[in-house]
Amino acid sequence: MILFRCDYAEGAHPEILKRLVETNFEQLDGYGCDRYTESARKKILEACACPDGEVHFLVGGTQTNATVIAALLHDYEGAVAVQTGHIGVHEAGAVEYTGHKVLTLPQHYGKMDAGELEAFLVAADADPNKDHMVWPGLVYISLSTEYGTVYSRAELAGLQEVAHKYGLPLFIDGARLGYALASPACDFTLADMKDLCDVFYIGGTKVGALCGEAVVFTKKAPKHFFTTIKQHGALLAKGRLLGVQFDTLFTDNLYSRIAANAIDRAQEMVTVLKEKGIPFFLETPTNQQFVILENRYMESLSTKVGFDIWEPYDADHTVVRFATSWATSPEQIRQLRELL
Amino acid sequence: MILFRCDYAEGAHPEILKRLVETNFEQLDGYGCDRYTESARKKILEACACPDGEVHFLVGGTQTNATVIAALLHDYEGAVAVQTGHIGVHEAGAVEYTGHKVLTLPQHYGKMDAGELEAFLVAADADPNKDHMVWPGLVYISLSTEYGTVYSRAELAGLQEVAHKYGLPLFIDGARLGYALASPACDFTLADMKDLCDVFYIGGTKVGALCGEAVVFTKKAPKHFFTTIKQHGALLAKGRLLGVQFDTLFTDNLYSRIAANAIDRAQEMVTVLKEKGIPFFLETPTNQQFVILENRYMESLSTKVGFDIWEPYDADHTVVRFATSWATSPEQIRQLRELL
Amino acid sequence: MILFRCDYAEGAHPEILKRLVETNFEQLDGYGCDRYTESARKKILEACACPDGEVHFLVGGTQTNATVIAALLHDYEGAVAVQTGHIGVHEAGAVEYTGHKVLTLPQHYGKMDAGELEAFLVAADADPNKDHMVWPGLVYISLSTEYGTVYSRAELAGLQEVAHKYGLPLFIDGARLGYALASPACDFTLADMKDLCDVFYIGGTKVGALCGEAVVFTKKAPKHFFTTIKQHGALLAKGRLLGVQFDTLFTDNLYSRIAANAIDRAQEMVTVLKEKGIPFFLETPTNQQFVILENRYMESLSTKVGFDIWEPYDADHTVVRFATSWATSPEQIRQLRELL
Amino acid sequence: MILFRCDYAEGAHPEILKRLVETNFEQLDGYGCDRYTESARKKILEACACPDGEVHFLVGGTQTNATVIAALLHDYEGAVAVQTGHIGVHEAGAVEYTGHKVLTLPQHYGKMDAGELEAFLVAADADPNKDHMVWPGLVYISLSTEYGTVYSRAELAGLQEVAHKYGLPLFIDGARLGYALASPACDFTLADMKDLCDVFYIGGTKVGALCGEAVVFTKKAPKHFFTTIKQHGALLAKGRLLGVQFDTLFTDNLYSRIAANAIDRAQEMVTVLKEKGIPFFLETPTNQQFVILENRYMESLSTKVGFDIWEPYDADHTVVRFATSWATSPEQIRQLRELL
Repeated sequence: MILFRCDYAEGAHPEILKRLVETNFEQLDGYGCDRYTESARKKILEACACPDGEVHFLVGGTQTNATVIAALLHDYEGAVAVQTGHIGVHEAGAVEYTGHKVLTLPQHYGKMDAGELEAFLVAADADPNKDHMVWPGLVYISLSTEYGTVYSRAELAGLQEVAHKYGLPLFIDGARLGYALASPACDFTLADMKDLCDVFYIGGTKVGALCGEAVVFTKKAPKHFFTTIKQHGALLAKGRLLGVQFDTLFTDNLYSRIAANAIDRAQEMVTVLKEKGIPFFLETPTNQQFVILENRYMESLSTKVGFDIWEPYDADHTVVRFATSWATSPEQIRQLRELL
Repeated sequence: MILFRCDYAEGAHPEILKRLVETNFEQLDGYGCDRYTESARKKILEACACPDGEVHFLVGGTQTNATVIAALLHDYEGAVAVQTGHIGVHEAGAVEYTGHKVLTLPQHYGKMDAGELEAFLVAADADPNKDHMVWPGLVYISLSTEYGTVYSRAELAGLQEVAHKYGLPLFIDGARLGYALASPACDFTLADMKDLCDVFYIGGTKVGALCGEAVVFTKKAPKHFFTTIKQHGALLAKGRLLGVQFDTLFTDNLYSRIAANAIDRAQEMVTVLKEKGIPFFLETPTNQQFVILENRYMESLSTKVGFDIWEPYDADHTVVRFATSWATSPEQIRQLRELL
Repeated sequence: MILFRCDYAEGAHPEILKRLVETNFEQLDGYGCDRYTESARKKILEACACPDGEVHFLVGGTQTNATVIAALLHDYEGAVAVQTGHIGVHEAGAVEYTGHKVLTLPQHYGKMDAGELEAFLVAADADPNKDHMVWPGLVYISLSTEYGTVYSRAELAGLQEVAHKYGLPLFIDGARLGYALASPACDFTLADMKDLCDVFYIGGTKVGALCGEAVVFTKKAPKHFFTTIKQHGALLAKGRLLGVQFDTLFTDNLYSRIAANAIDRAQEMVTVLKEKGIPFFLETPTNQQFVILENRYMESLSTKVGFDIWEPYDADHTVVRFATSWATSPEQIRQLRELL
Repeated sequence: MILFRCDYAEGAHPEILKRLVETNFEQLDGYGCDRYTESARKKILEACACPDGEVHFLVGGTQTNATVIAALLHDYEGAVAVQTGHIGVHEAGAVEYTGHKVLTLPQHYGKMDAGELEAFLVAADADPNKDHMVWPGLVYISLSTEYGTVYSRAELAGLQEVAHKYGLPLFIDGARLGYALASPACDFTLADMKDLCDVFYIGGTKVGALCGEAVVFTKKAPKHFFTTIKQHGALLAKGRLLGVQFDTLFTDNLYSRIAANAIDRAQEMVTVLKEKGIPFFLETPTNQQFVILENRYMESLSTKVGFDIWEPYDADHTVVRFATSWATSPEQIRQLRELL
């Protein structure tokens, strides 16, 4: 059995495990007040060309989304997201649990359109009942999106311009940021992110770490964000676990190098899928590919290859997702080719 | 510099790291649906002699407390705890953030008294205004307590009897459960816990793991507790990180063996502290010891030895905490002796 | 200036004020423990032919929705409503503020379709990611709807059947229940409601009271619902204010008599609007009528007649709402005719 | 049966009912956008000598406390109150339900001591774990207190000075503000309040209204406070109900005149109680008096006179409260004298 179900099927990049072992018996202060976490913060700000930014480490994506969103919003505000936005669908209502509504816009293969965002904000502002409604408080997008698509620099700039025009920060869920940046379709770099949004995170869990997301506030974190992290149950006593991992990921460009592997393998996988005549629902420039399988074939294939069932296509077909990751080997793509 | 500041100054037990490395490239399902997590669950239930119980893994203590408490309580209920209970003091209001009040009782070196609990519940029930007040919904205690003390079997049975008499579950915060059970003062075992409470957790973070707490519902978890974990941002995509760790900790009694080390070192430390004539604020049977230091001596000592400032004693003295852990070596105790 | 903007432009029915004056100096217990509240409860249960039901009085609609929904849902559940449902749009996120998501279905002039509800629940249950998603916890509809439409008995029975099949209670927001029941289009009575849903409320604010909504649990209220009301800030010290009002409204059928007046006036208003050639966006069988006004005409009319701007129709036209109420007089309809 | 149980046993002052009747058929805009509410706002700001302040009307005390506190606090903050503070005891956890902890200080017959407040804030700021704890975010006191006591001007100034020194607003729960200001022990006036706190409310429910509390922000309300009120379910559609009542209460000093009646009657009641040899637990300068009754006498008295059971005194005695109100007549005091 070989899994292309997701990008978190393996543990961590071996270099990370090596560093965890090497530093294991160093006595360090807890809660992220150790030298590795400090070093990781510096390296990330440097990689982001954002010396005045602020970095905080949290454990997982849903947690990070809920914590950052709750910290940025006033009680009377909600987060604007597209209908397929992770926060509105697959996070078990974690944002609403903090008291905030997710306000939804249409999605375009996972992406938000700046024009539609502006139309929504104009209408919200013009609504005679606006004082009886949730106020838009921030704009949430994901990069790459839930559909593996990537915004262009111009699209992000457009979203940010609209968001700022209406006084809202732009927050980018970067659980798969590495794969977006490594994609040939991406026309900007990590160092550009500071100009394109107010806060984003650099996903570790799906890009080589055991766990961990590095939140980058491009200007300044909300006051007492450390306490907010604690209040959300998101503060590790052994903060070193996150510090050492991100310190390693941001040494010698490890993060971008291993993200690039996922993209290379995904492109090989696309070739294989096409060669086998499997129709695409959506071919993307990142590590997730969506194809249409006939249901009986899907059943039999599923005994040999792991993939993710996405949504019904029609009565006889289903959209499924194949994902590569930092850990996918050329050999695994060859195996896939044989099994298809 | 040598640290006795806490029991989470080192990484993980080497056996855990070894297993993380060995299993690293196995492709596993996410969210705790992997074979190691499944194995860990079985071993824990076996160690607990609780075949019909249910085990869930979360990442850290504050998170576990808030998630379990919110899952057990109705909106109109609060958690009864002593004034020094971790949930009421050092968790940044995580329980209140979920909408629930912490109702406080007096503490006796961190312990709750069954008689005082009953008096409180009787008074709550007799209060003519009770319908205008938060209803007691569960009893929360910690074992070992924030003061390193340990309940006797009779004390726990007494608390549970009172709690059940008033229809409340008893929840034990076991962030330091290993150290309590390994203490010579403890007259019960892990296998007895199922009879002494309704839900407890086996702390990993402070007893040899990088992170992780294993929640044991001695009967059955609240409905959809998996979704509740997700909603609280407490679900790891790479659930294996918790599974492998607890599977290792519950193989060949590793958990209890390494906890015993902390107790042995703590007793050596007590001997050293007494030998040096340092007065005790509280000598405990577990891994935390509380002594009184003269303030100028404390200042100078703090440049060589890490300890935790607990609370002022008087104008010239301070109560400080020295803690050992699974990782403390006899050599470190010898060093401490030289530095005092 | 004459107002048809809403159905809460006047105070209370004179009979209510008379009773408030008459009972004013009687010394009564607070919080709804007085004889008038008790009498109101009995009369309502009798009018509902629901002797085993339970009645609670709250102050306003948004408050009632949030309190009832929070009381019925577990933390991991959300409320299913149509996109125009009041709870999802015009209540400032009050439901989300209690931690619960509003899950939305398409609307049909404000109504939910039983088939679409079932398709949604089937899909929710079949979703392989359902444990990562908000669980549907109740079905919320309004009667009459935000568009002034009324469900038929068969439609309600269909919704309830689907809801119950999936274990969900059906909750009816009856802020305008009086007007629905008084409508010629309504093929059921107040006494039928107990068979058609699990909990509903009888709106007072919009049907003759100064304030107040009577929640009827057709079987039994959630445990400690009194405390829940208090916790939501919805408990009046002078509960008599609600008790006397509902006692009056349910004496000699006052509630249904005054609701019928609104319907009679609305039908006269429809005749007038048609006579004046004003096109309808939606002609309804209740007290709200939606017409399309040319924008310049709308401007000039708005200096003489109050109406509610509903939504843009096209570049030159706007949908506006005219509402009658228990207080609308034939004379006011005549005046409207002259002003149009 | 004659009731001295509380100060909300009667309806409203007749002048209020008269005005409700007189204005009943005026068509007015909803949600507090009517001329009476506007007029009430102006009259209150004038009476408060606070032309730049902002007034909002809510329905009841618990609701007002939760709404104002949630609006003033950041998520990571709690409200500092004395142990007997209404928000911490008799509001069913309404403040915690909004996510905020109530941080408690000792009480002195219901009052907070400025020195103790400062000691608490100093300790909170000096605590090495402060980032793991709830941050003090505002100071809450009540006036008159739950024990009927009144702060002096110097005491209030002292509390405000400390609060401001640590950056916290001072919020005064004025459910019984009228009775405090009318007390001979009170050395300041309503016009002084603006100098003594940041926000307070003028209780209507207990001082002559059917319901309603007027919140006065002495500088400026938190942004979008209207939406916050709606989100808390505290916005009346018929805002006129509050507007007309407060407009009446602040015409010709009605509010202070009727409050003075309660104080006059309370002083007569004190004389009667003393004359009868009933020992005082606490004699206060306001409308609540606390006496000690022998339990059997209490039983038999309770069949003729309503009073509030406060707390056990000893095995044979109970502390009970007798309260007067704006509605208490000299005749009722004479009756009480006969019944004792």
